[in-house]
Amino acid sequence: MFNKETYIRRRKELQRLVGDGVIVLFGNNESPCNFPNNGYYPFRQDSSFLYYFGQQRDGLVGVIDIDNNTETLIGDDIDIEDIVWYGSVNSVSNMASEVGVSHSAPMKELTKICNDALRQKRKIHFLPPYRFDIKLQILDLLGIHPNQQKESASMNLIKAVVKMRSVKDAEEIKELEHAATIGYQMHTTAMRLIKPGRTEKYIAGQVNGIALSYGSSVSFPTIFSQHGEILHGAPSLNQLEAGKLVLCDAGAENMNNYCSDNTRTMPVTGKFTQRQLEIYSIVEACHDYALEISKPGVKYFDVHLAVCRLMTDRLKELGLMKGDTEEAVRAGAHAIFLPHGLGHMMGLDVHDMENLDQINVGFDEETRPNLNQFGTNSLRMGRRLEEGFVVTDEPGIYFIPDLIDDWKTSGYCKDFLNFDKLESYKDFGGIRLEDDILITHDGCRFIGKDLIPYHPNDVEAFMENN
Amino acid sequence: MFNKETYIRRRKELQRLVGDGVIVLFGNNESPCNFPNNGYYPFRQDSSFLYYFGQQRDGLVGVIDIDNNTETLIGDDIDIEDIVWYGSVNSVSNMASEVGVSHSAPMKELTKICNDALRQKRKIHFLPPYRFDIKLQILDLLGIHPNQQKESASMNLIKAVVKMRSVKDAEEIKELEHAATIGYQMHTTAMRLIKPGRTEKYIAGQVNGIALSYGSSVSFPTIFSQHGEILHGAPSLNQLEAGKLVLCDAGAENMNNYCSDNTRTMPVTGKFTQRQLEIYSIVEACHDYALEISKPGVKYFDVHLAVCRLMTDRLKELGLMKGDTEEAVRAGAHAIFLPHGLGHMMGLDVHDMENLDQINVGFDEETRPNLNQFGTNSLRMGRRLEEGFVVTDEPGIYFIPDLIDDWKTSGYCKDFLNFDKLESYKDFGGIRLEDDILITHDGCRFIGKDLIPYHPNDVEAFMENN
Repeated sequence: MFNKETYIRRRKELQRLVGDGVIVLFGNNESPCNFPNNGYYPFRQDSSFLYYFGQQRDGLVGVIDIDNNTETLIGDDIDIEDIVWYGSVNSVSNMASEVGVSHSAPMKELTKICNDALRQKRKIHFLPPYRFDIKLQILDLLGIHPNQQKESASMNLIKAVVKMRSVKDAEEIKELEHAATIGYQMHTTAMRLIKPGRTEKYIAGQVNGIALSYGSSVSFPTIFSQHGEILHGAPSLNQLEAGKLVLCDAGAENMNNYCSDNTRTMPVTGKFTQRQLEIYSIVEACHDYALEISKPGVKYFDVHLAVCRLMTDRLKELGLMKGDTEEAVRAGAHAIFLPHGLGHMMGLDVHDMENLDQINVGFDEETRPNLNQFGTNSLRMGRRLEEGFVVTDEPGIYFIPDLIDDWKTSGYCKDFLNFDKLESYKDFGGIRLEDDILITHDGCRFIGKDLIPYHPNDVEAFMENN
Repeated sequence: MFNKETYIRRRKELQRLVGDGVIVLFGNNESPCNFPNNGYYPFRQDSSFLYYFGQQRDGLVGVIDIDNNTETLIGDDIDIEDIVWYGSVNSVSNMASEVGVSHSAPMKELTKICNDALRQKRKIHFLPPYRFDIKLQILDLLGIHPNQQKESASMNLIKAVVKMRSVKDAEEIKELEHAATIGYQMHTTAMRLIKPGRTEKYIAGQVNGIALSYGSSVSFPTIFSQHGEILHGAPSLNQLEAGKLVLCDAGAENMNNYCSDNTRTMPVTGKFTQRQLEIYSIVEACHDYALEISKPGVKYFDVHLAVCRLMTDRLKELGLMKGDTEEAVRAGAHAIFLPHGLGHMMGLDVHDMENLDQINVGFDEETRPNLNQFGTNSLRMGRRLEEGFVVTDEPGIYFIPDLIDDWKTSGYCKDFLNFDKLESYKDFGGIRLEDDILITHDGCRFIGKDLIPYHPNDVEAFMENN
């Protein structure tokens, strides 16, 4: 938790940006896994609630009445039976004062607040809910069916939150740097453990253990797979095999829920083959090129396209693509190799603010995503970079057998792709390299004091010596 | 997954037990953590769905139309974009045939099935939902508000499922034995890592890593705490301190979601103090006594009470309790030390079938829980043991400062408690020992080939040598 002045300042700015009405920020509740009560998933607070109200307990709601300039932290205190099971916890009124909120109230007060505001025909601002318990709560409080809640959410509030959370201040950057140190340990642990015969699941479990030992958790389910071509591939019980690549996409959330997100792709034996190096070096070049050109004022969509052009040029040299580079990228031919965007915002969520919808977070009046083109429609971040933005830089090249067959059959982008040559890469897998970058006043820099090795020589040297 | 005959047999028996109507068994969906879609918690299938339909994918519903003797697996197939992100997956019709179900259908068919059955005034049997997305689904399908769904759930179906899942067959016992081998590794890893200066969180993270490396996950959030007196205490960033005890309550779920659940309490230095040994040996005696007397035909509530009497006798010897043992236990005085029940059913859920309500799982016509007495009201399992039941045996003695103050102030059970002496134990913490036992034809036995050390000499020897 930051000190109370941070939260006071943030809420004041939020009031100013939203203008009028009542803001209701729902904190998260416990989330049942395989039975209620004891069968919970690990608690994860809502990130916007954390940003403005800082408290980690379940069952809290923050209310900001802009018209009357009052703030209330709402939640029920626990009783002696709860203390026996979960230990003493802070009272709601204490939690309120810790983050500079003057009022606190039990949960039943929320119904009254909502009823009063509805009667007075005042605007009630809420964010689009992503958890079903909150959807039910909104249904009961405001009479809006879950199917209508996304469009009933407050665009003013969404825009204000996005504006504020997009720019990371010094306190937040320190947290992100800290998360990166855990991420470094996760990835170097994976690199140390990789050897033929070990299962993907074994190594992924150890990697997750690091996140749990030093932070609050992983920032997303760890991807650790010899099938790097499956973008979100789950670790399997398959053993690592000599000659294959293994892709590790993993990150930590530190105790304050700031994230890291990195990807490395390594040879199981510790040595790349010539064919692997040819593809790897293209991804490496794309990764580094994005770093070179990212700076305030540049649209991240343009960075994405520049990377796609570089990738196309290099794949043409290998005989996998053909034709005019500009035309190929305009047609979306590169997306058979790179079906996702170059990166996304990162902060309190690994895909920062994704619950507010990528169109509101990664785009603006000036930039609209192209939702009609495969690959480009997965771009999560396209708008102009600003100092303080944190984005991922994560190019990849994948050989996806089902996708190759699909495009070959339909003839999609056939003028730019050598399908015959592609056939021989169907067993290749996929390569992705990902780092988190902070946009500075005149360029960008990596987040993370120690960089996880990614240049091929560094990877091979690390794996040989550890 | 077991072979298809197992599932066919189970569903046939379920049909017979329920008698008529349409059974709708909802599989689980992905559960959003901090944003939708990519921000999911790890997927966990519903245990009853697993038991009867065996498949691990999200978004499935199993329908058994008893009146027409048809079974249908309902779910939507995935498209090429899903394959790019998540890899090829089985078709719904293939998944159906793998578990011996003859029909499959897309999700929209479920609306039709429910509408038809409602129109024909046939009984639609569903289990009480515990996830909010399923509650919303039931609201939309059957028009029942979430607040009414628990009482609208089918008692026939609940009783049939409890009857069947309570008795573990040979295949299931093999799975539980396998989960126990992972649990053994988790606990012995903790014992190896314990030393002054390490944080609770660090060790808990490593313990969780073992569960993730060898199984699908932990069977519940790992408790690893020097505050053993907090029954479900979360691991903190506090460092382990010489002289303290640390309690580790942790278990694994193997890849087929069968669970283990054990607790050990260890001295941070590897050597118990005399005062710790005095309390520890009482818990050890209670643990072993339960093993001695548990067998088919005996009510587990009676085993619980027998353990409470033994504990009371021994605490009287230490001067912590006083008065007549029978009367003390009848009054619930022991619950200041043991505020929970002796154990619970275990299987596909660590608290097996807790979503069906403990009153239906752990009790029956003959045995009713006493919900009015503190401590006894937490007993999850009271009914007569049968061959094939798997229950936990988990006595504990805790010194809970808030509870001691509360009882002392109110004078509750003052005739049986020496509050003055209790004062001096407020810094003690708590001790729990827990193992999983299988009820055999004439007694019971531990689950797990290798027993995690728990006799004080064994604990000290293990910690010294590892």
